[in-house]
Amino acid sequence: MVHVQAYDTTLRDGAQMEGISLSVADKLRLVTVIDSLGVDYIEGGWPGAIPKDTEFFRQAATLAPDIRARLAAFGSTCKPGISAKDDSQVLALAESGASVVTLVAKSDPRHVKQALRTSEEENLRMVADTVSFLSSRCEVMVDLEHFFDGLAFDATYGLNVALAAAQAGATTVICCDTNGGGLPHSIADAIRAVRTMLDKEGYADVVVGMHAHNDTGCAVANTLAAVKAGARHIQGTVNGYGERTGNANLLTCIANLQLKMGYDVVPPQGVRNLSSVSHTVAEIANMAAFARDPYVGHSAFAHKAGLHASAIKVNPDLYQHMEPEQVGNARRMLVSEMAGRASIELKAAELGLDVSHDKELTGRIAATVKAREAEGYTYDAADASFDLLLREEMGTAPVLWRIESWKVTTREVTVTPESIFTESEATIKLHAGGRFVTTAEGNGPVNALDNALRGALRGVYPQVDQFRLRNFKVRILDEDRGGTDALTRVLIDTEDSRDIWTTVGVGTNVIEASWEALLEAYRYGLVRAEVTPA
Amino acid sequence: MVHVQAYDTTLRDGAQMEGISLSVADKLRLVTVIDSLGVDYIEGGWPGAIPKDTEFFRQAATLAPDIRARLAAFGSTCKPGISAKDDSQVLALAESGASVVTLVAKSDPRHVKQALRTSEEENLRMVADTVSFLSSRCEVMVDLEHFFDGLAFDATYGLNVALAAAQAGATTVICCDTNGGGLPHSIADAIRAVRTMLDKEGYADVVVGMHAHNDTGCAVANTLAAVKAGARHIQGTVNGYGERTGNANLLTCIANLQLKMGYDVVPPQGVRNLSSVSHTVAEIANMAAFARDPYVGHSAFAHKAGLHASAIKVNPDLYQHMEPEQVGNARRMLVSEMAGRASIELKAAELGLDVSHDKELTGRIAATVKAREAEGYTYDAADASFDLLLREEMGTAPVLWRIESWKVTTREVTVTPESIFTESEATIKLHAGGRFVTTAEGNGPVNALDNALRGALRGVYPQVDQFRLRNFKVRILDEDRGGTDALTRVLIDTEDSRDIWTTVGVGTNVIEASWEALLEAYRYGLVRAEVTPA
Repeated sequence: MVHVQAYDTTLRDGAQMEGISLSVADKLRLVTVIDSLGVDYIEGGWPGAIPKDTEFFRQAATLAPDIRARLAAFGSTCKPGISAKDDSQVLALAESGASVVTLVAKSDPRHVKQALRTSEEENLRMVADTVSFLSSRCEVMVDLEHFFDGLAFDATYGLNVALAAAQAGATTVICCDTNGGGLPHSIADAIRAVRTMLDKEGYADVVVGMHAHNDTGCAVANTLAAVKAGARHIQGTVNGYGERTGNANLLTCIANLQLKMGYDVVPPQGVRNLSSVSHTVAEIANMAAFARDPYVGHSAFAHKAGLHASAIKVNPDLYQHMEPEQVGNARRMLVSEMAGRASIELKAAELGLDVSHDKELTGRIAATVKAREAEGYTYDAADASFDLLLREEMGTAPVLWRIESWKVTTREVTVTPESIFTESEATIKLHAGGRFVTTAEGNGPVNALDNALRGALRGVYPQVDQFRLRNFKVRILDEDRGGTDALTRVLIDTEDSRDIWTTVGVGTNVIEASWEALLEAYRYGLVRAEVTPA
Repeated sequence: MVHVQAYDTTLRDGAQMEGISLSVADKLRLVTVIDSLGVDYIEGGWPGAIPKDTEFFRQAATLAPDIRARLAAFGSTCKPGISAKDDSQVLALAESGASVVTLVAKSDPRHVKQALRTSEEENLRMVADTVSFLSSRCEVMVDLEHFFDGLAFDATYGLNVALAAAQAGATTVICCDTNGGGLPHSIADAIRAVRTMLDKEGYADVVVGMHAHNDTGCAVANTLAAVKAGARHIQGTVNGYGERTGNANLLTCIANLQLKMGYDVVPPQGVRNLSSVSHTVAEIANMAAFARDPYVGHSAFAHKAGLHASAIKVNPDLYQHMEPEQVGNARRMLVSEMAGRASIELKAAELGLDVSHDKELTGRIAATVKAREAEGYTYDAADASFDLLLREEMGTAPVLWRIESWKVTTREVTVTPESIFTESEATIKLHAGGRFVTTAEGNGPVNALDNALRGALRGVYPQVDQFRLRNFKVRILDEDRGGTDALTRVLIDTEDSRDIWTTVGVGTNVIEASWEALLEAYRYGLVRAEVTPA
C-alpha cells in the first residue's frame, strides 16, 4: 500500500479559528490525543513569534519521547535583505528543539511584490537560504503559500519556488490553497505540474503535499484529488477547525484515503480512534461537537426514516456506506413520526428491550409515538423518554413516586440599591415511601426544581446524587400562535458517571414542559439503575 | 451559459435531520424564503404518506401563484403486483395538486430483492407503469435510489431502470448516492455512463440529475463532479440539512457552479440572497447557524487581524477567494475598531439616527456592542434593543418607569384528582408617576409577567394595550457549560398595528433574561411612540 503522510496542524492553523483559544496546557493535552491517531507529524505552533508557542516547545521536549508523531515548528523564511543565519525568527526556529521545521514561503508573485515588498529573485534567495541553513539542523518542509492562485496568475513562478526549496534540501513542498477558493479539478492539475517538474529535475524523492481550506466546501475533495494527482503528504486539522470556513478535516481525509481509496495513512487502531479523537479534541477546544461531521459525528450513522428501517433489519449494509465501528462510531435508530413498526423494534432492541414477538404492541407504540409527536413531542432526540414510553406500553414501568404539588417562584431581590439579583426558589411535595416537602434555590426556575426534586428523592433513591443536568434546550413549536402563549418543547440531557440520556417535555407553560422533562430524566435514571420502588 | 436546474429538498430530505421538526406553517414560510433563491424546483414532502405533507400541499395551492419555483411532491413507484392506477399512494400524488412529482425508484438489484422483495423485471414494470400513469397529469422525475452502489454491484441494471423511466416519459432521472459513500471520481464515471446510454438510446432530452449525501465530506464536490460529467439538475438542501451527515449543501453548490465554474443556476439576485436565505432557514428550523459554512457562514470571510491586516487594506483580493458581497455576506476583521464603527454608522442610519458626525460616539458604541456581544447579547436580530442602546449612549433615552420589585410563581394546581393544571402568577411593583402594584396570571411565567407589566403601565401609557408579544425564542449559549446553569439568550418579537420589533435579554436565569427582553420591548414601543415620561 502506498503511504500518505498525515500532518496535523490543529494546534497552529486550527487555533486560528474564531472562538478557539488554546493554553499551553491545552496544546500539550491535544498532542497526546492527536497522537493516538498515529499521524506522522503534529505542528505545534510558531516558536519565537508567539510567546505561548515558544513555551509550548520548551515543555513539549519532555513529552516527545512518549509520542509517536514528530513535532513540527512553523515559521517563515528569513526577511528580505538579510541572511537566514542573522534572522532572529529563523534562529528561534533552530533553537526550538523541534526536529521538523515547516517554513511558509511566498509562491505567488503578487504577494511577493505587494505583501513582502521585494523582488521575485530575492524571495527565491530567501527560500533557498533559510531552507539550507535549517536543513543541517533538522528536517525542513516548505509551505508554498497561495500556491494555486499564484500558478493561475503565473504558470512558472510557484514551480521555481518549489524547485528552490527542493534544491536547498527541503524533504517536502506543500502546495497551499491559502484563500481556499480551489476546486478539485484545478487542484489536481496544479499538483501534477509540481510532481512532474520535480521528477524531471531529479527530485523524485521530494514529497509533494497538500494544504486545503474549505471556502468552497471542497477541502476534503481537494485533498483527495491532490493525492490522486501524486501528493503523498496531507495537512489538515481535527474537525476541520481553522480560520474562516476551516481547514481540511484531517479525520475525514484519513477515513476516505484509508477505507475507500486504499492508501496507507495511519495504523488501523488510529482509524478506530477517529471518533474519540474528534470528541476529545472538541472538548479540550471547548467547541460543541458537530453532529453531522462525516464518519465521526453523533448523527453520522443515525437513521430516521421508517421507509428504510424495515430493510435495515434485513441487511444493515444496504443502508450504510461502511461499518461505523471501523471508525469507532455506532449506528443509531431515530424514532419519529415517520417511523413504522420496524424502526420501533430496532430502537427497542438498541435499548435492550425485545418487542419483536408482539405485533400488536409495536403497532400500539408506533401509534402512540405518532400521536405524541403530533402534540409536539420528539423522540428522535429523546431516547430516555422513548424508553419510558415503551415500558409504559409494555406495563413494566414502575411507579417511583407520586407528586402532590410543586411550585417555583422567581423574583428580583434588592439587597442594596447597587446589588440587585434574581433568585429562583422551588417547593415540591411528593410521596415516595413517606411524604417529603423540600424547598431549594437555583439560578433559574428549572435549576431550582432540579435541586428541590433531588433533595426530595435523595433519602429514598440515593442514586439521584449521581445525576447531573448537562444541557437544557427550549424550542417554541408554533411561533405563529404567538408570543408567550405558544407551545414549548424542552429537551434535557442528564448524565451520571456511566451514561448520558435525553428526555422531553411539552406544554404551553415552559416551566410545566421543563418539569415533565425533568421528572422523566430522574425516572429514567432510576429505572435504568433498577431501583426498588420505595 | 449552460443552465443547471436547482432542486431544493430542504422540506423533505432536509427535514429528515435529527433535531429538525417542521410544522405545516414552518414549511409554508420556508417555501417563500427558499423561492427567493430562484431555484427551479422546491420539493414539499410526501402527500398521502405523511398527513402533515398532505395538508401542506393543500395549503400550498394558494401560495403557488406567488412563487417562482415549481412545487414538487415526492412519492414512490407503485407497489409490486398492483397497477399504478390502483395504488392509493400513487393516486394521492396525482391528487396532491403538485405540478411535478418525483418518484423514488429502486435501482440496485440487491434493494429490489431484499427491501422490495420482488423481481428485477417487476421493479422495471412498476417504474414504467407509475411514470406513464402520472406523466399524463404532471411532470414526472425519477430519483434512482442507491444508484451508485447499485452500478458498482451490477453495471447494467441501474441503467435499465433509468431507461425505463425515460421511455415512460420521465423528464429527469436523478442518480442518488443514497448511502453517501461516493467520491468524486467514481461519481463522475457513473454519471457519464447514464448520459451516454440515454444519448445512445435517443433520449438526449432527458435530463440527468445528481442527489448527494455528505457521508464522505464530499457531497458538494460529488455534485460538481456530476455536473462536469454531464448532469444538468442538482438536488440539495439549504445549509446541507439532512439525515446522518446531511445532503449536499445547495447554497454551496449554487455558489461554486455559478461563480467559479461558469454555469447558470439561479438569477444573480438569487446568488446575492444566499446568505440571508441560509440564516432565515436556520432560524425557522430552529437550528444554530453554522459559522463555518462556505460562502454564507458568519466566519466565512472573517480575518484574524495581525500579520496580514495592512496587506488586506492595500488589496483585499489577495486574501479572499471572492467578494463576499456577491453572496450577500461581508468581510469581517475580527480585531478592528474601524470595521466596528462603519457598521455602527450604517445600522444607526438604517434606524433613522445619524451618528456619522461623532467619531467619539460611534467608537464608544462600537466598544459597548463588542462588550455586550461578548456577554452573549446579539444585535443582528434585535434591532429594537440596538436602537435603545444607541439612544442610551446618545443620552436621548427617556426613563419611563422604575421597577421596585417583581416576582413570578408557577405551580401545579389540583382542582380535582382528574383536573390538574399549571398556573403562573406574576406580581410587579413599579413607579411611573405613582406607585403601581399589579398581579396577573398567565399560561407561563413570561406570559404572566407580560400581563402584569401591561396592567401596571396601562394607566399612564395606554399605548401598551396595542402591544402584542408575537414570538419568544430561547437559546442556550454555552451548552458545554452545562445543564440549567448555562447562559440563556431570549429574543422577543413584539408587534402593534404598525410595526414589529425584536428585543434581547441575557442571563443565567431564563426568567431574568426574558424579563429584560420584555422591558426593552415595552420601552422601545413607547419610545417609538414618543410618549412623555409620566
